[in-house]
Amino acid sequence: MTDSLTRNIKHLLTSLVLQGVHDFVVSPGSRTTPIALLLAEMQQLRDDVRVTVDVDERSAAFFALGIAKTSHQPVVLLATSGTATGNYLPAFMEASISHVPLIALTTDRPTELQQIGAPQTVQQENLYGHHTKAYAAIEMQDDHEDVTAYIDYHVQELVGMALTHPMGPIQINLPLRKPLMPKLAESWPTVTPQRILVGQRQAGWQNTQAIAALLRKPKAMMLLGPDEIGWDIEKLEQLAAHYQLPVLADVLSNFRPSEYAINGIDSLLAADVIDDSLVPDVVLRFGGTPVSAKVVAWLRDQEIPVIQIGQEHAGHDHGRHTHTTVIADPNAVVSDLLAEPGVKNAAFLTQWQELTSKLMAVVAAEKTDSIEYQVPAALATLPENAKLFIANSMPIRDMDNYFVPEQQIQIAANRGANGIDGTVSSAFGMAMSGKPTTLLTGDLTLFHDMNGLMLSHQAHVPMTIVVINNQGGGIFSFLPQAEAAAYFEPMFGTPLPIVIERIARLYDAEYKLVDQLETLSELIRKPATRLRIIEVQSDRQKNVTAHHDLTSAIKEALS
Amino acid sequence: MTDSLTRNIKHLLTSLVLQGVHDFVVSPGSRTTPIALLLAEMQQLRDDVRVTVDVDERSAAFFALGIAKTSHQPVVLLATSGTATGNYLPAFMEASISHVPLIALTTDRPTELQQIGAPQTVQQENLYGHHTKAYAAIEMQDDHEDVTAYIDYHVQELVGMALTHPMGPIQINLPLRKPLMPKLAESWPTVTPQRILVGQRQAGWQNTQAIAALLRKPKAMMLLGPDEIGWDIEKLEQLAAHYQLPVLADVLSNFRPSEYAINGIDSLLAADVIDDSLVPDVVLRFGGTPVSAKVVAWLRDQEIPVIQIGQEHAGHDHGRHTHTTVIADPNAVVSDLLAEPGVKNAAFLTQWQELTSKLMAVVAAEKTDSIEYQVPAALATLPENAKLFIANSMPIRDMDNYFVPEQQIQIAANRGANGIDGTVSSAFGMAMSGKPTTLLTGDLTLFHDMNGLMLSHQAHVPMTIVVINNQGGGIFSFLPQAEAAAYFEPMFGTPLPIVIERIARLYDAEYKLVDQLETLSELIRKPATRLRIIEVQSDRQKNVTAHHDLTSAIKEALS
Repeated sequence: MTDSLTRNIKHLLTSLVLQGVHDFVVSPGSRTTPIALLLAEMQQLRDDVRVTVDVDERSAAFFALGIAKTSHQPVVLLATSGTATGNYLPAFMEASISHVPLIALTTDRPTELQQIGAPQTVQQENLYGHHTKAYAAIEMQDDHEDVTAYIDYHVQELVGMALTHPMGPIQINLPLRKPLMPKLAESWPTVTPQRILVGQRQAGWQNTQAIAALLRKPKAMMLLGPDEIGWDIEKLEQLAAHYQLPVLADVLSNFRPSEYAINGIDSLLAADVIDDSLVPDVVLRFGGTPVSAKVVAWLRDQEIPVIQIGQEHAGHDHGRHTHTTVIADPNAVVSDLLAEPGVKNAAFLTQWQELTSKLMAVVAAEKTDSIEYQVPAALATLPENAKLFIANSMPIRDMDNYFVPEQQIQIAANRGANGIDGTVSSAFGMAMSGKPTTLLTGDLTLFHDMNGLMLSHQAHVPMTIVVINNQGGGIFSFLPQAEAAAYFEPMFGTPLPIVIERIARLYDAEYKLVDQLETLSELIRKPATRLRIIEVQSDRQKNVTAHHDLTSAIKEALS
Repeated sequence: MTDSLTRNIKHLLTSLVLQGVHDFVVSPGSRTTPIALLLAEMQQLRDDVRVTVDVDERSAAFFALGIAKTSHQPVVLLATSGTATGNYLPAFMEASISHVPLIALTTDRPTELQQIGAPQTVQQENLYGHHTKAYAAIEMQDDHEDVTAYIDYHVQELVGMALTHPMGPIQINLPLRKPLMPKLAESWPTVTPQRILVGQRQAGWQNTQAIAALLRKPKAMMLLGPDEIGWDIEKLEQLAAHYQLPVLADVLSNFRPSEYAINGIDSLLAADVIDDSLVPDVVLRFGGTPVSAKVVAWLRDQEIPVIQIGQEHAGHDHGRHTHTTVIADPNAVVSDLLAEPGVKNAAFLTQWQELTSKLMAVVAAEKTDSIEYQVPAALATLPENAKLFIANSMPIRDMDNYFVPEQQIQIAANRGANGIDGTVSSAFGMAMSGKPTTLLTGDLTLFHDMNGLMLSHQAHVPMTIVVINNQGGGIFSFLPQAEAAAYFEPMFGTPLPIVIERIARLYDAEYKLVDQLETLSELIRKPATRLRIIEVQSDRQKNVTAHHDLTSAIKEALS
């Protein structure tokens, strides 16, 4: 008969897989030994389990975040006791706000070593507090017959909690007593799936007809924020067609390049070229907080009625303006709305489509010696089914304004908490989809998570990284502190003497320095076969001037 | 008249400095703008303020930890809102357990943006929970006349809380509303020091005579664990001389190379060469949890009476064996004990001194093809007043057993929570003392905090890093999981394809590959003038064999 440690861990792991966990991200340690070894054995026995090792726990958590954001499935993290577990906090903050079902297995010292000076023993109970949906501590070395059954039930329930709306991360703390070696190469138990309604979608909201009537107004619009749930793009496009709706499509909505997509709203608002005839009577809003801060302010200042639909955000609107909130599955709402009568008149849609076309023409025509805002156009050639991860700060803003992919691709970013930490790791998580993946980042964000580059070795996936290197924090040059010239460079610009080519050499990456955007377009058309770093050099000061010039040009052309 | 934001922040910063804060470690961000700019201005106005910028908040926190561990003064961290603040958690875990007065200023979004989907807004209240001694949220933009006075009082009180025993980290959350630009180049206010008894040492414990009587027993001993408070080495040595005490001196006790120091206790216990005549009647214990796990178990198993003295650990003993705890300032206790009659008989001391001498002779004589456990001897030539930071895992163990510096040097490690994260940054914190500093680390720990190397640029301090490169996690080879051959390398050994020389090139460091320990000794005798990385290559498997052979040789020679 097998020991209780081995038996209970097998039940734990099998219960996780039964409820939809396929990816496990492990950071090595001593206390994790029995779980890591049984996980390695399980991977050999099952086709639906994939284990990736990442030495740096901060990177591991952001990597798991990237996998889960792309697959919309729960991902498990495994860490040893002590400060290792603390490294998950930044990614958990992001996961909590952007509704990603991460499950941290934090192994711990047993109860008799707590709080009395035993080494590597920190307080791990409910470690991520408000940043988790649920916390549980589960004993793995208890012989009582009820315990194994409890593990099956409770672990499956916990995955269910991560997956029900609003989705979010959970922590399972596992105190483990020595000896830690499990029994290997024994049979695995059969675990009964509990009747937990994982991913259950709420149904039955009431006001379909009322909303459809609003959408038939002459000037109705849609606003699609970041897509967190993997919504049905085709149906959303049918909805736009059915009611002839222009769609303010966030770069993370995955809705571009639809003909109904209006992009560059932030740029249009900055240039002040949206006249009264373009102000909608009503806006149907889906998804997370839009990248554009201006669009939220515009909806509020113009007092435009907004109906917000979804289960994750449940009326979250920092403009404090939404007047109707429908807490329901967006896909179901769209289906219901498609069953109502639509409209034929495309006048309002056409007006918006013309505006966005003109905007893109101005951007393309603008002569500039700064390359940054033209990178989005160069990336438009990404092949069909490609994946794109966008770093925060300047890249996400330029992409939101000026990026329209030629093909349907999946795009993600960490826009819950908007951190620059962990970006490289999250992009590698996206690359675990097996699809060609590109990360667009600045040099500071690349540096912040440079350890994440080790995933090219540990996860065995190729990726292309396009680095816009402006030697420091480009976004600060757009903020008021740029005026404090004496203190600006050391306190904000923070130029780092990092040579990108040397980073590439350290990680055995293919390296290209690109100064022509045509070259960038050509390069990214071909997926990487290993880690590939493409550097685009920029100049912070010239970039500020170029952006200001562009706004003036837009104003002139579109007013 | 200046605005409330500028005035209140000046009071905040001045209050911190008044209570002993001299080092500020800043990670750039937008929300920190007014504090960062006024800090930069204050640095220009005052000689006792030093500001260091570190882009990566995880590294910044471990760097601040290193400064505070070395200087025994409070150090302030400044982070922008969002996931940035979460990156402090690992270092706060360590600071909490090893009693380091870190003060995190976490800037936050204002109250009206909380919890409603505003970007980069996470729950930052009491973020580090049990890992902090205190938490406060302070308004900086309130015009009420009492608020400024409250900032003076409360901020000074908070520093006092960090510094009173047991010392530990605190968090001050600062919600800030736009506009964030402070007024520069105006006069600074005079702040009145509050009567807070910072660093007050408790006095008046009662049992001096009783303890002195115990120390006059024929077989009395001292155990010095890690020194967290910067204790008085000279007085401790006088105490050893006064009562003729052999001192089990942890490598982090700073007590070596005293003639009273007994080192290698873990090695001696592993070889089972401590006979009954060496078992003490009583042990006087100071400091943190010793590196040697075996010595704690030995005290318990031999039922040796232990008197533990200090204010930080207050009876913490994971052997659950200490029978008397004196919560008092160790330096005061030592003074009191020196005033009592001592002893002349050195028989017991001599017996232990002979044992430790023999041990060192065996280690020096042992012929081996593994270099790792001979590195400590090579480092013995570090010059007087040098500083040494030791990474966890194998380096700290080998150093605890075999390192005896020729000169008095200060040694530190992160032995509260024993993490491998943040080690490079903490060592740079130590280097901020201005004294020649060396970090001894393995390759995995170097990789885990590689971002910390940027501090050579951002803190402008030289440092020597000795990397024992055994291509992965060496300590796991000593643990039971090494038997699980099929899964061992990918799950625990985790060999990383990192070329140390390329890391050196990336960070513009001087690089040396050393295969002779004499060369290592010569090199470290001369302090580095910039970042210098010395690589010592090892082989994990040979190292295990060599350690086992050494234990056999010790057993044979000393039994």
